Amino acid sequence: MRIEEMNWMDVEEYLQHDDRLMLVVGACEQHGYLSLLSDVKIPLALADAASKQTGVIVAPPMNFGSSPYFLTYPGTLSLKLSTLMDAMEDILRSAYGQGFKRFLVLNGHGGNSGLKIRLTELANQCSSLQVQWYAWWMAHSVEEVAIRHDLKPSHANWLEAFPFNIVADLPVGEKIPPHVPSDVIDAQRTREVYGDGSFGGRYRAPQETMAEIFDAALQDVLQLLKFQ
Amino acid sequence: MRIEEMNWMDVEEYLQHDDRLMLVVGACEQHGYLSLLSDVKIPLALADAASKQTGVIVAPPMNFGSSPYFLTYPGTLSLKLSTLMDAMEDILRSAYGQGFKRFLVLNGHGGNSGLKIRLTELANQCSSLQVQWYAWWMAHSVEEVAIRHDLKPSHANWLEAFPFNIVADLPVGEKIPPHVPSDVIDAQRTREVYGDGSFGGRYRAPQETMAEIFDAALQDVLQLLKFQ
Amino acid sequence: MRIEEMNWMDVEEYLQHDDRLMLVVGACEQHGYLSLLSDVKIPLALADAASKQTGVIVAPPMNFGSSPYFLTYPGTLSLKLSTLMDAMEDILRSAYGQGFKRFLVLNGHGGNSGLKIRLTELANQCSSLQVQWYAWWMAHSVEEVAIRHDLKPSHANWLEAFPFNIVADLPVGEKIPPHVPSDVIDAQRTREVYGDGSFGGRYRAPQETMAEIFDAALQDVLQLLKFQ
Amino acid sequence: MRIEEMNWMDVEEYLQHDDRLMLVVGACEQHGYLSLLSDVKIPLALADAASKQTGVIVAPPMNFGSSPYFLTYPGTLSLKLSTLMDAMEDILRSAYGQGFKRFLVLNGHGGNSGLKIRLTELANQCSSLQVQWYAWWMAHSVEEVAIRHDLKPSHANWLEAFPFNIVADLPVGEKIPPHVPSDVIDAQRTREVYGDGSFGGRYRAPQETMAEIFDAALQDVLQLLKFQ
Amino acid sequence: MRIEEMNWMDVEEYLQHDDRLMLVVGACEQHGYLSLLSDVKIPLALADAASKQTGVIVAPPMNFGSSPYFLTYPGTLSLKLSTLMDAMEDILRSAYGQGFKRFLVLNGHGGNSGLKIRLTELANQCSSLQVQWYAWWMAHSVEEVAIRHDLKPSHANWLEAFPFNIVADLPVGEKIPPHVPSDVIDAQRTREVYGDGSFGGRYRAPQETMAEIFDAALQDVLQLLKFQ
Amino acid sequence: MRIEEMNWMDVEEYLQHDDRLMLVVGACEQHGYLSLLSDVKIPLALADAASKQTGVIVAPPMNFGSSPYFLTYPGTLSLKLSTLMDAMEDILRSAYGQGFKRFLVLNGHGGNSGLKIRLTELANQCSSLQVQWYAWWMAHSVEEVAIRHDLKPSHANWLEAFPFNIVADLPVGEKIPPHVPSDVIDAQRTREVYGDGSFGGRYRAPQETMAEIFDAALQDVLQLLKFQ
Repeated sequence: MRIEEMNWMDVEEYLQHDDRLMLVVGACEQHGYLSLLSDVKIPLALADAASKQTGVIVAPPMNFGSSPYFLTYPGTLSLKLSTLMDAMEDILRSAYGQGFKRFLVLNGHGGNSGLKIRLTELANQCSSLQVQWYAWWMAHSVEEVAIRHDLKPSHANWLEAFPFNIVADLPVGEKIPPHVPSDVIDAQRTREVYGDGSFGGRYRAPQETMAEIFDAALQDVLQLLKFQ
Repeated sequence: MRIEEMNWMDVEEYLQHDDRLMLVVGACEQHGYLSLLSDVKIPLALADAASKQTGVIVAPPMNFGSSPYFLTYPGTLSLKLSTLMDAMEDILRSAYGQGFKRFLVLNGHGGNSGLKIRLTELANQCSSLQVQWYAWWMAHSVEEVAIRHDLKPSHANWLEAFPFNIVADLPVGEKIPPHVPSDVIDAQRTREVYGDGSFGGRYRAPQETMAEIFDAALQDVLQLLKFQ
Repeated sequence: MRIEEMNWMDVEEYLQHDDRLMLVVGACEQHGYLSLLSDVKIPLALADAASKQTGVIVAPPMNFGSSPYFLTYPGTLSLKLSTLMDAMEDILRSAYGQGFKRFLVLNGHGGNSGLKIRLTELANQCSSLQVQWYAWWMAHSVEEVAIRHDLKPSHANWLEAFPFNIVADLPVGEKIPPHVPSDVIDAQRTREVYGDGSFGGRYRAPQETMAEIFDAALQDVLQLLKFQ
Repeated sequence: MRIEEMNWMDVEEYLQHDDRLMLVVGACEQHGYLSLLSDVKIPLALADAASKQTGVIVAPPMNFGSSPYFLTYPGTLSLKLSTLMDAMEDILRSAYGQGFKRFLVLNGHGGNSGLKIRLTELANQCSSLQVQWYAWWMAHSVEEVAIRHDLKPSHANWLEAFPFNIVADLPVGEKIPPHVPSDVIDAQRTREVYGDGSFGGRYRAPQETMAEIFDAALQDVLQLLKFQ
Repeated sequence: MRIEEMNWMDVEEYLQHDDRLMLVVGACEQHGYLSLLSDVKIPLALADAASKQTGVIVAPPMNFGSSPYFLTYPGTLSLKLSTLMDAMEDILRSAYGQGFKRFLVLNGHGGNSGLKIRLTELANQCSSLQVQWYAWWMAHSVEEVAIRHDLKPSHANWLEAFPFNIVADLPVGEKIPPHVPSDVIDAQRTREVYGDGSFGGRYRAPQETMAEIFDAALQDVLQLLKFQ
Repeated sequence: MRIEEMNWMDVEEYLQHDDRLMLVVGACEQHGYLSLLSDVKIPLALADAASKQTGVIVAPPMNFGSSPYFLTYPGTLSLKLSTLMDAMEDILRSAYGQGFKRFLVLNGHGGNSGLKIRLTELANQCSSLQVQWYAWWMAHSVEEVAIRHDLKPSHANWLEAFPFNIVADLPVGEKIPPHVPSDVIDAQRTREVYGDGSFGGRYRAPQETMAEIFDAALQDVLQLLKFQ
């Protein structure tokens, strides 16, 4: 259940028997032909599905992440990493103060990884705080599905083309991954390099494959929610 | 249309003929018997309705605001005001850099008012930037509807009991507004003062009244979107 | 008594029998024909008068507030809101650490309202801390006097034309309030809109009216100093 | 003339023929038997005197400085150095944007020296900005007067016992300067070391000597206001 | 050549014909039996070697990185990630202002990866700025050497046991990698999990293997210094 | 012994019998004909020498300080003072959390003096924390040696021309100290004023004098390490 479907009395009751919370953080950034909010929608869908099975509640998503390299693609709305870290700290501390102790952060965007450092700093300060971090696209389980289907996972290619992210016709065929000159490139050059925004590979995969990917990630989430 | 239903090419095309963007900011905080996300859902509903009539696009909502006084109510997830200001600045600058010049900020939460100062600072720095700010519950148009129906608008009472915010049965009758000892009270005392979280008055109003309220606010939004 | 008329031994003695402190915060900003420091002088005069009757001491005023919209009017010296919040936090924490527990913040400037959020955050962190906030020009008591005399209170009009703020001849007659295009306007446009800086209405009121206004506010301050 | 005696039109007129501004920054901190605001009152008195002779205007004083070591002495209200730097930057940038180009910062407190670094950072960023810094108690001219009268200048001793700082009877005689264990001592230990707060030496000097001191510093200020 | 072996005239001369600079950033953190400064020493050794072949100069190393998880291991001196980002920004801006345009950041520590986001933000702001980022232990070239020798690279195992990092006898044999409960663990739990601090695998490798590793990384660095 | 020659077990063992740590902070800035890292090398050399006699360990140096005035001299890499304060706080807190209680900060650069304020703030917060601060070039002991040899100590003159700082031939003779127009000058003007970067006086002194200087400072350091 999402917090937005609850009032505070519901949450108070929940805290009588559980202290887990799912936090979703993603990005509002270019995803080629896919939804600009793909990086939020995927982890949120995972959170919803996991919530249905476990009853663990889901906080409203942080709809913005750190994507300075994509700022030349209209619709990309990026936070400084320091802002994002402050925001997630404020949110986590709010919930921690109310009795939440175990947090699963479902991250949908690579540029947010620095958040783990801040979360560790928090874990050092807040006794009994436990944090799990899940970046679905980096999971072994997801990689295995991709390998089995001979597909290369990458930003804004088939890997993220879940039905709920499709907002336009996707190109047929495959894009040759461009040469990337550096790990740190400014937004101007990034657009020159990536053109339509996909990092290359096939633009879509059969729905069954997507379902397999989703299910693989969901199993991970369910496992992580055990906090073992 | 919401940005999440678009890809970056759609936004680029939009910017060929328009430079307006609606930003929604609210709070995840106690609203008595109503949804913890009431302060986001209302301005977002207004934005959606205004978008349908004007085609102006809507950014993903900032789901968190500044509510330190409600932190004792479980489910309240509050940002420091400084964090919120930083986040909204980052978002606005991202869009401004892409060609958006006129922003309508639809605010759903009183604790966020300090944001106006930061927005003014930004307006001083960014040439051609125009910002409108709309706090629906403080609008004259909304007040008029309330007066006409002899209803007192207040936090978490009938005023916010739109259908989409109702997540539980609402009490019948009316709550006597509690005595508030100060303009600045800590979260512990706030809970003692407000009990169920409503600031008093009737808990609900007829759906027709709610529709009138919504429509009054919508007309304001439509007017503000003209940026005159 | 003001802290500047005391040495630390005097304050230590005071803390033996009292734990209240008045903090004055205002702005150094354009006030039309009136003193640039009007927003400090008014709450400071109130604090002095209340101190005389109660013995509660008065901290040196914070002479600067958040006024980004007036920066095109020479003499306006504005702090970022985040700077102002940090400064007031530092000051309050200093005094709290010495045994002050009850603070009355006398605010003279609308742009500082965001401070209340920071003060609430502090109240959440500091046990036994009590904060009262008084914005004299928004008080019901002051409004009543204005209504009784059929005067509209507004920025830099008669409302602030206390004798101690008059530094030049005031225009006779009345200014028609200009049309204000938005709640958030940059300093350039603000000056175009407001011209001489007054928000409209009569430029001055009889001294007896001003004395009534002052006394109404003073009674509020005296009441708030009871911290009930 | 102080800005508080002016309205914005006066300042605008001033800027037609001058671009100098005096900024006063001090501290609200223990000064033994002297006023807690000694560090503001001295440079402000110098600024007033220099203004009378030169017509250069004086901004409202920043009444707070960085004095963490004195926080155990009641009445000491200290800003973090980072807060103070931010505040002074905001103030200077406000004035600079209006046409002030030459600033004389009259500092009354040793703990504020880090400000010079921030002012240099600003000077690197703002073309044509000129900043002079004056710490009266460190001036050669003042030292000379002290030597001539065989007096040792120090914190809260005769050196600061100007008539306007005297708020209580001053002890007769001389205090032996205590042994100071370190350049960095916490507020608890500081109080143990310094007791009444004076750093030692005579508690007062004849009024003629004080007048000589004041005049020596004033001549420096007048010289610096030439910005040569 | 390191900047410390130069004076400013040397650097000015260098800028006549080159605009490249190597920045070394690492960590001061536990490395099992190895030097606490291993994460600095390795990229610095690479920088020195590359400098010898290319003449590109090397800035003094930033000796501290973000390692909150290791704070229970004495000698770990960790910066907040936000502090580290600020520091590296200040350093890069200093050099950029003097004419350096192409920077190779040699990073020795995984916890610093968030820096890439800040560097991208800078690249967006500074025209002609080019940044390369090299994390030697994640390089394909290094991985290949490890695979060829059937060694698993990991924190504080053989991979970092370069001669210059050896400060004690290294255990013979191999450590079984411990079960790691989460991607985000506090320092207390981290120490329970990792014991001696190594993440597992062999503690050392033959010197010839280490030389191969070093040379593989060096070739990468030389290639990156071409900024192609 | 330097921390870089130790592993964490060594430091843990050290903490069984000692709780002192030397922190070295300097600057990477122009020093005329001398090494750009002179301000680090001198206090580090002192720390090494004192460590040899006392066994007190030495943290890796912070190689960067606050030198905004020298940014026009290539090779000067300056931190904002606020960044430097944050970095040193993070480092000190890391060590304090591990059991270090007595810190000797060996500072090599005048622009870093604001650090003392932050260190005092820390001392107020961390019980049992003791901090000593040593700025060798301001020591009476050093001044005495200079006077005895009739030499004027100044930035980048003989005073810092220790053998380990000499990276080029030093001019013969003496430089006349330039007229300095202000305590706060921007980097452009600073270079015009200082030319080669030395503040004037002789460029070098006999090695025996330098040894005397070093020894005088070393005796101070040894004394301070007693924390009496």
